[in-house]
Amino acid sequence: MTEEQYRKKMQRRKEVQEQRLQERSHEKGLIIVHTGNGKGKTTAALGMVLRSLGHGYKVAIVQFIKGAWEPAEKAVFSLWPAQLEFHAMGEGFTWETQDRQRDIETAQVAWNKALTFVRNPDYKLVLLDEVNVALKLGYLTVEQVLSGLDEKPADSHLILTGRGAPPALIERADLVTEMTLVKHPFREQGVKAQPGIEY
Amino acid sequence: MTEEQYRKKMQRRKEVQEQRLQERSHEKGLIIVHTGNGKGKTTAALGMVLRSLGHGYKVAIVQFIKGAWEPAEKAVFSLWPAQLEFHAMGEGFTWETQDRQRDIETAQVAWNKALTFVRNPDYKLVLLDEVNVALKLGYLTVEQVLSGLDEKPADSHLILTGRGAPPALIERADLVTEMTLVKHPFREQGVKAQPGIEY
Repeated sequence: MTEEQYRKKMQRRKEVQEQRLQERSHEKGLIIVHTGNGKGKTTAALGMVLRSLGHGYKVAIVQFIKGAWEPAEKAVFSLWPAQLEFHAMGEGFTWETQDRQRDIETAQVAWNKALTFVRNPDYKLVLLDEVNVALKLGYLTVEQVLSGLDEKPADSHLILTGRGAPPALIERADLVTEMTLVKHPFREQGVKAQPGIEY
Repeated sequence: MTEEQYRKKMQRRKEVQEQRLQERSHEKGLIIVHTGNGKGKTTAALGMVLRSLGHGYKVAIVQFIKGAWEPAEKAVFSLWPAQLEFHAMGEGFTWETQDRQRDIETAQVAWNKALTFVRNPDYKLVLLDEVNVALKLGYLTVEQVLSGLDEKPADSHLILTGRGAPPALIERADLVTEMTLVKHPFREQGVKAQPGIEY
């Protein structure tokens, strides 16, 4: 292809791109799901939190499984005291607590806390971290979560992370990404969780 | 299952988990690839950047396709002047520039800039954003990038993002996640790119 042919081809491609952008005309508060067995579900949600904070939006994070933030995450989150609310409401995985009834009660408390942010139009983005795991373990019901989604203001975004997102949630969501594990050094090389990468 | 049976089952699961953690004994600077057609490749890398900054590490970001940072990203990145270097070295997609030779030169300049961070042991994490796209378009060669990976210090992490990561790069990487598009509101609902989510 000559340089001139190349330029013409790209000129046409540009027109197609511009046409596409025109068709994508409206804004909408999204229900976003990050699921799958690969890494990056929470991490990608944190990237959206970061962008939203950069826009000056108020953001809330509720963590459903872990009972405390990792120190590095806490240090970073604390940089936005007026914009960011973050609550670690879990008590650990079920094999850590070993008490199913208590796990259910803990998840229900977290869910009620989450709802206060989901309903509140001041929060442009709400991240329900690992909520899909609480659903998968039966600590929360799908009906209860879907009914909570109804309370989201039209222009707020909500992210639900964790493996095993139930089909009814995927059906309901606007943007769903499955993080697919291709290679992982935990499994294949016996490498442990490392600062900056996993926490 | 009685509460007691449940407790015993989770007790056994806890032992398995602890055994696994013991087997994952060492640390290693990772070559990480985020690829696939889904959303979250750059966003998940930004989450790792955030965690690393929280640990006090120095981090560098080189963006290979776009020529400028989005204002919200720039505002956030600027919070860590002593820890974070960020450079947008591209000039846009090939249908924007319409000049293949210039695109190649631009990518080569970006690659040389990236190498100065990749080699430098002061940088614990280096993010080469959209570098896979530059590879896919032939602006950089796979051999050149693989040879650059050889220069990474043993305990530094390197993230390469973008769709279409070449097989030789996946083979070489330690941690590979494919972001798989399940549902996307651009395509299905004509929703446009929104602040906090896409930029």
